[in-house]
Amino acid sequence: MAKLLDSVVSEMSRLPGIGRRTALRLAMHILKMEADDVASMVESIADFRQHICHCPQCGNLSDDGLCEVCSNPMRDRSTVCVVEQVADLLSIEKTQQYRGTYHVLGGVISPMQGIAPSDLTIDLLMERIRSGEVREVIIAISTSVEGETTLFYLMNLLRQYPAVRITNIARGIGFGDELEYVDEQTITHALANRRPIE
Amino acid sequence: MAKLLDSVVSEMSRLPGIGRRTALRLAMHILKMEADDVASMVESIADFRQHICHCPQCGNLSDDGLCEVCSNPMRDRSTVCVVEQVADLLSIEKTQQYRGTYHVLGGVISPMQGIAPSDLTIDLLMERIRSGEVREVIIAISTSVEGETTLFYLMNLLRQYPAVRITNIARGIGFGDELEYVDEQTITHALANRRPIE
Repeated sequence: MAKLLDSVVSEMSRLPGIGRRTALRLAMHILKMEADDVASMVESIADFRQHICHCPQCGNLSDDGLCEVCSNPMRDRSTVCVVEQVADLLSIEKTQQYRGTYHVLGGVISPMQGIAPSDLTIDLLMERIRSGEVREVIIAISTSVEGETTLFYLMNLLRQYPAVRITNIARGIGFGDELEYVDEQTITHALANRRPIE
Repeated sequence: MAKLLDSVVSEMSRLPGIGRRTALRLAMHILKMEADDVASMVESIADFRQHICHCPQCGNLSDDGLCEVCSNPMRDRSTVCVVEQVADLLSIEKTQQYRGTYHVLGGVISPMQGIAPSDLTIDLLMERIRSGEVREVIIAISTSVEGETTLFYLMNLLRQYPAVRITNIARGIGFGDELEYVDEQTITHALANRRPIE
């Protein structure tokens, strides 16, 4: 295999979900792209890695200083939605329904993977709580064992602030989900938490 | 969304099979990679696009001049295997069983997609045939309508050289394939072309 090809295939197959076969297909596509388009793609990757930073308030990604959400005066700073990662924040933003702010933990507590509470942005969150500005914390972290551990840890800290309301996003059957394919735990929860039809 | 993030996601989702969601996941991974590793990946893409060239003899990718196969004196230049694209050549090379050379057409004749014989490397192939060096041409192009059209076109040209043997790679049931899932045409062909067990 030509060295230039071998090198681009090896480098690209370091990315998650991209094996050598996919990397080869991408390389062949890159060959057909306009040189300018390839240059601009490559530049955007390098720029992103070099210059993106984390919002000093919520941990979201930001071009510079406070992120778009935290710097938006229209957002309700008394409501904070706690998520694991930036991708979760973006999913919520896509609904265009949430007007509060966020707090991105940067993961969940996982002794197995060596992730301690101090590796997350929990201190930063508690700082925001102590400022007295926050009235409600919405927990939107996953229901995995690690997620539940993190939830428990957060609850212990947040209980010291009785003025702050703590809520959890609703769990249940998703819209459009076929009951046939939904896991037992979700169905059990959805049945136990059934609501009267209004 | 931060501009740097939006830009890298937009650029990467131009690649085939990569939607915005996958691009976002890749971006998050790139953020966690060492800066040096990202730089080396980005450089390999740019280098590949700028410097890779086509072998002037067979159309394979090459760092410079003749490709690795054509420049290897151990390869049998009297046998030429005709393939559609570089990926096909690499699949055959991976078997380490084929000792002949290749000819990469660069696609198949497709009036629908506006690909004429002159867009392929057919002239280059005929030049090799005319040199008198070639004793056998192995056709290894796909059995799609376009592939068959290309085969027909090539056969018409190659028939002028009766000293050159033209063969087709064997079609049949792949090793490990479950008969239950094999298409009818392949089964029909495999039955008609059954061979005595030795």
